[in-house]
Amino acid sequence: MTTLHIDLGNLPALALGCTVFAGGGGGDPRIGEQMAMEAIREFGPVEIRSLDAFDDDDLIMPCGMIGAPTVMVEKIPNGAEGRAIRETYERMFGRPVTAVMPFEMGGINGVLPVAWAAYAGLPLLDADFMGRAFPELQMLTPHLYGMSGSPAVITDERMQTVVFNTRDNIWLEKLVRNCVASLGGSACGGLYPMSVGQARRPAIAGTVSKAIRMGETIRRGGGDPIDSIVRVAPVVRLGQGKVVDIERRTSGGFVRGSALIEGLGTDKGRLFRLEFQNENLVVLEDGEPLATVPDIITLLDIHTGHGIVTEGTRYGQRIQIVAFPSPPVWTTAEGLRAVGPRAFGYDFDFLSVADRHA
Amino acid sequence: MTTLHIDLGNLPALALGCTVFAGGGGGDPRIGEQMAMEAIREFGPVEIRSLDAFDDDDLIMPCGMIGAPTVMVEKIPNGAEGRAIRETYERMFGRPVTAVMPFEMGGINGVLPVAWAAYAGLPLLDADFMGRAFPELQMLTPHLYGMSGSPAVITDERMQTVVFNTRDNIWLEKLVRNCVASLGGSACGGLYPMSVGQARRPAIAGTVSKAIRMGETIRRGGGDPIDSIVRVAPVVRLGQGKVVDIERRTSGGFVRGSALIEGLGTDKGRLFRLEFQNENLVVLEDGEPLATVPDIITLLDIHTGHGIVTEGTRYGQRIQIVAFPSPPVWTTAEGLRAVGPRAFGYDFDFLSVADRHA
Repeated sequence: MTTLHIDLGNLPALALGCTVFAGGGGGDPRIGEQMAMEAIREFGPVEIRSLDAFDDDDLIMPCGMIGAPTVMVEKIPNGAEGRAIRETYERMFGRPVTAVMPFEMGGINGVLPVAWAAYAGLPLLDADFMGRAFPELQMLTPHLYGMSGSPAVITDERMQTVVFNTRDNIWLEKLVRNCVASLGGSACGGLYPMSVGQARRPAIAGTVSKAIRMGETIRRGGGDPIDSIVRVAPVVRLGQGKVVDIERRTSGGFVRGSALIEGLGTDKGRLFRLEFQNENLVVLEDGEPLATVPDIITLLDIHTGHGIVTEGTRYGQRIQIVAFPSPPVWTTAEGLRAVGPRAFGYDFDFLSVADRHA
Repeated sequence: MTTLHIDLGNLPALALGCTVFAGGGGGDPRIGEQMAMEAIREFGPVEIRSLDAFDDDDLIMPCGMIGAPTVMVEKIPNGAEGRAIRETYERMFGRPVTAVMPFEMGGINGVLPVAWAAYAGLPLLDADFMGRAFPELQMLTPHLYGMSGSPAVITDERMQTVVFNTRDNIWLEKLVRNCVASLGGSACGGLYPMSVGQARRPAIAGTVSKAIRMGETIRRGGGDPIDSIVRVAPVVRLGQGKVVDIERRTSGGFVRGSALIEGLGTDKGRLFRLEFQNENLVVLEDGEPLATVPDIITLLDIHTGHGIVTEGTRYGQRIQIVAFPSPPVWTTAEGLRAVGPRAFGYDFDFLSVADRHA
């Protein structure tokens, strides 16, 4: 087992990889990257460790930002939120947190926990609970195993904390979402705290190091970015085009909306409709789905291969629409009930890009 | 010092007294009375003790319901909420709660803590933090002394808990109010937990026993109810009449609205307008205030002298409009800033009924 670190050298690659796996969501990673950079400068690189490197009783802290990515870009954390979450959990559990973990590997949430780990002098777990980004709190893998997201801790840049113990994870989503809206639309949080032993089943392993590899590949560049990407993860091209319309509304702690993409080159004459709730949910063509959650639908800059986050989508952008097959845990019957198209109100079933195009 | 108890004999008097001092708010005490009755039947009478009967380090639990009284009458607590609040505080403070205290002496909140004290086998403090009822969380006396309402605990009939640690009491009101709205419009809570030593300054002493005396006087009845009431507390008659219009809307954890009252008897020809936000805020005549918060404005049934709660006001009711002079703590400059008419958005100053009519 080689020891991997996140340092000033590979941090930009991690941030870039996070835009690719986020499915458009998770917030612009540049804010988290900036904070992680400052933290690493001050406290040194952050060690990345797999679950196997810990004892079963070790306490992990899954954490990140919660709320609308459109708000996150303007409502910057102050850096101390991670400490507020950690101290609250340590008081509650009566033992120290042993490792920091991104609860979702995508957007700002793949990078911000690096800053919190650096400040705390703790390692970062090479795993997350989504294998991508999703908008709601019951859309984490432990939910599928009947595990509770409580106690959840929400904190803001004013160092206020709110601790939730709810009957189930649907109530948790409802109460936390509302609290985050009251706090201005985004906040930082810890969810599904558990021991390493408990985390072995739900954790999706290797997602941090995979995002770094993805970012490094794209940064090396040369030729069609997709040729680089496919070396790290199977990816399906859905089409290329130009963003000709984008509509976003931020309310209740989410950003929802859609984008219209007119085909270019070999896709001239086609019209794609992308719909999102923080993350990209479906791509439609002539009213029929081309790809759906939980597959990871990402808009890539046609030249650089950088992922474009929901709030960064602009009229005129030239993009590739690609999809990565979902982590397998989400394509079970249980998984699809939580994060399939019907969980987001669509009247059609999941359509695996792996089956159709890969 | 004689030891006073709340038993099945004087509980109805307490509940009745609570309608008089609530200023129309605090929720219909009958629900709390029913719960306290069951608790006393099972666990025996509850001892009422003054602050002097405790040690400085003893921990008190100020508690009650929070939300719209219109909702409280339909969303009944299950009785165990007091235990959830107590256990949360005991874990947090690392020592047992020594006494239960109503945070407001009015409506359901003057009676429900009796049930919680009975279940816990704890005494009830003969004091509260309002000397009446008020709708918002910064409208408690400790706020005037710069004391924090945090940690506040909210719980519901599903035994969910949310614990708030906020920067100030205005944020506490905002976050708790929103959470209560998410929980369906009303919930149970503990606020401003503190030691007996800390409570000596902000506590308004004797309000539980005063409500019992008031209820007993009214229940004995005979003649004009106001002649009985004035024996317990100075009271000012503002007018008598018939409710000819009532408008109520419940939103965001409050009930707001107004009632029109047409003068009867010696007040024939007069028209009174009562405005409320959970509690009665002002009585106007020809657009001019007759009485304002923090004086306690109460509608009394013209025959029985029973107080009529906001959500119990109906077309056709024959009522006396009376006002009790506010507890002195609220008529200081600081007090009026928190609970005077301007704190509720009115463009006029406090007008003491004690000065004008008593």
